[in-house]
Amino acid sequence: MDKLTEFGRSIQKPDQEVFQAALQRLSEQVRPKGSLGKLEGTAARLAGIKGTLNVLLKNKYIVTCAGDHGVVAEDVSLYPQEVTPQMVHAFVDNGASINVLARHAGARVLVADLGVNWEFDPQLPIVHAKVRKGTRNMVHGPALTRDEAEQSIWAGIAIVEDLVHQGLDILGTGDMGIGNTTPSTAIIAAFSGLPVARLTGRGTGLDDERLRHKIQVIERALEVNSPDPRDPLDVLAKVGGLEIGGLAGLVIGAAVHKVPVVCDGLIATAGALIGCQIAPGAKEYLFPSHLSVEKGHTYMHERLGLDPLLDLEFRLGEGTGAAVAMELLDASTRILAEIKTFAELKVSTAQG
Amino acid sequence: MDKLTEFGRSIQKPDQEVFQAALQRLSEQVRPKGSLGKLEGTAARLAGIKGTLNVLLKNKYIVTCAGDHGVVAEDVSLYPQEVTPQMVHAFVDNGASINVLARHAGARVLVADLGVNWEFDPQLPIVHAKVRKGTRNMVHGPALTRDEAEQSIWAGIAIVEDLVHQGLDILGTGDMGIGNTTPSTAIIAAFSGLPVARLTGRGTGLDDERLRHKIQVIERALEVNSPDPRDPLDVLAKVGGLEIGGLAGLVIGAAVHKVPVVCDGLIATAGALIGCQIAPGAKEYLFPSHLSVEKGHTYMHERLGLDPLLDLEFRLGEGTGAAVAMELLDASTRILAEIKTFAELKVSTAQG
Repeated sequence: MDKLTEFGRSIQKPDQEVFQAALQRLSEQVRPKGSLGKLEGTAARLAGIKGTLNVLLKNKYIVTCAGDHGVVAEDVSLYPQEVTPQMVHAFVDNGASINVLARHAGARVLVADLGVNWEFDPQLPIVHAKVRKGTRNMVHGPALTRDEAEQSIWAGIAIVEDLVHQGLDILGTGDMGIGNTTPSTAIIAAFSGLPVARLTGRGTGLDDERLRHKIQVIERALEVNSPDPRDPLDVLAKVGGLEIGGLAGLVIGAAVHKVPVVCDGLIATAGALIGCQIAPGAKEYLFPSHLSVEKGHTYMHERLGLDPLLDLEFRLGEGTGAAVAMELLDASTRILAEIKTFAELKVSTAQG
Repeated sequence: MDKLTEFGRSIQKPDQEVFQAALQRLSEQVRPKGSLGKLEGTAARLAGIKGTLNVLLKNKYIVTCAGDHGVVAEDVSLYPQEVTPQMVHAFVDNGASINVLARHAGARVLVADLGVNWEFDPQLPIVHAKVRKGTRNMVHGPALTRDEAEQSIWAGIAIVEDLVHQGLDILGTGDMGIGNTTPSTAIIAAFSGLPVARLTGRGTGLDDERLRHKIQVIERALEVNSPDPRDPLDVLAKVGGLEIGGLAGLVIGAAVHKVPVVCDGLIATAGALIGCQIAPGAKEYLFPSHLSVEKGHTYMHERLGLDPLLDLEFRLGEGTGAAVAMELLDASTRILAEIKTFAELKVSTAQG
C-alpha cells in the first residue's frame, strides 16, 4: 500500500453515538419534527465529528489554493494567466471577494501557492508550496508527473497540519487559477464517463463558440491521456492541476485530524473528489457548500453522495461559497445546542 | 379611496440612481461579472432602498405575529391550539428556534399577539395588539369581519412605526399560530384560482389521509365564502387570520418607512401577498428569504415575482427562514461595499 493510501486509512469514523444523540435531541426540540430541514442533518454530522452536542466552531480558516494551467494556451479562459498571481496579491491585500466574505463569516484566509506560474517574493505572507510553475498543457500529454501530483496532495496535508497545530475548528476550501474549470471538468468527466458536453460550463463567461471549443479541448485531453478512473492519482496527474491536488490534500488531512471541511465550488469539489477517492473516509468530514452555475458541479455532488446547502448562482471560487456556508454550519450548531425541548419549556406535543 | 390604500400610496420608489451605481460597481469588482449570483441583485436593491453603496444593517428585528384560528375545530393540525400561547411564552423565555436563529443573525425578536385565543398577563413583554381571541371557523362563514381584518393590518403598521422610532434598519417577519398553514393556503388559492390540492402541504406533518381532509376543508371555506381576489381585504377577512393581517401591515408599514423586509415562510408570505396587493409599492422593499417545503409557497413567490434566496427545506415559521436569510443580506451589503475593483487592485480584466 502506498503512503498516501495508508495515511488516508488512518481517518476515524465520526462518533455514531453522539450523532444519534444529536438526532434524538433535534427531534425533541420545541418545533415540528424535521422542520429545520437541511440544517438538522448538518448539525448532527458536526456533533458526531466533534463528539459533543455543544459544538463551537471558533477557529475558522479558508485555505485558497492557487495554481496555473498549461492548457490556457488553448484559449479556454477569458482572462490572461497573469491574473492568477495578481489575484494572489489581491488576497494578501484583503480586497478580493474571499477576504470580504471570510471576514463576514469570522474566518481567516490563508493563500497557498501550489503551482502559480510566477516568482513570488518569499516574504509574501502566503504558504509557499510551489510544486512547479503551472501544469503542462494536457492536450499534448499528462499535465503533471505522478510524483508532482502526489507532492501537491502532501503539500495540502501539510497546510492543514500546520493549522491544526495553531488550533483549527473548521476549514473552508477555495481555489484560484486562471483556466481551472477546464481540468476540473476533465476530472469529473474522467470519473463519471459522461459526455464532456453535458459537464462543461462557461467558466468566467465564455460565449457559445468558445464553450464549444472548451468542450473539444477537454475531449482531446481525455483522449490523449486516457486517465484511469480507478486510479485517482492518475486522473489528477493527467488532467488535473496543482491547486486541485492541494485541495485534495486539504480534505484528506482535515479528515485525519477530525476537522470538518466546507467545500467550495467546481474546482474545490474536483479536489474533494480526488481526495475522497484516495481516502473514502474523508467524505464523512465533508460539507459541500453550494451548487455552482458550472454544469459539472451537480455530477460531482452526485458522485460524492452529498447535497450542497446553498444555490446562490455563484460561479466565482476563491472559497466564497464555503465562507457563506460556514455561517450556516455555525447556525446549525446553535440550533442543536440552544433550542429547548418540548419538555424543557412545558409545551404540548403533537397529537395522534 | 380608503385610508389603507391611501397610506400604501405614500410608499416611495427606491433610489434608481443608487441602484444603477451599485450594479455598475458590482460589475467592476475584481471577479467575473455576475459571479456572486443572487447576492448581487440583493445588494443593489438594498443600496437603492437605503440610498447608499455603503449599507449598514445594524438594528435588526424579527417580528413574530401570533394568532389563533377557528378552523382548527376541523382537525387540520397535529398540535392543539394551546400550543400557540405556550410558544409565545417560549419566545419570551428565549428558548425557541427563532430566538436561537435571530441571536445568530444579530437580530432582536419582538413577539406580537394579534389574535391568540388566550388571556396573556399584561406584563408579558410582547406587543399586546389582540383584535379578537382567534378567528371564527371559516368553513361556516367569514373568519373575520372586514373591520377586524383592517384592524389587524393597522396593528402591524403600528408595530413597525414604533420600531422605526427606536431605530430599525431591517425587519424580518415571522408567525406563530396553530393551524395557520390552512388559511395561508386558502389565501393563495383565492388569489391564484389554482386547485387547492396543488397548493396544500402537510403543515407540521399530516399524513396522507389528514392532508386530503385539510384540502377538503380549504375547498369548503372557499366555496362558503367566495373571497374576491381583486379585494385583498375581503380575502383576508373571509379566509385569513389576524397574524396574517399583522404580517401584511408589517410589510406595508416597513415600505412606507423605507425599511427592507425579509419575509419568512408560507404564512409570512401570505401576509406579504395581502400587503402587496393593497400597496403594490411595498414589493420593492420585500426580500423573500427561503422556499418552504409547503407546496403553496412556490406559487406565492411566483405571484410576487420574487425569488427566495434559500432552500433549506425549512417548514417551521416563527421567522426562522428570515433570520437565516438576514445574514445573507448582510453579506450582500459587504460584497458591494468592500470588494475592490480591477482598477483599484491593478488586476488585468477579461479579454475579447
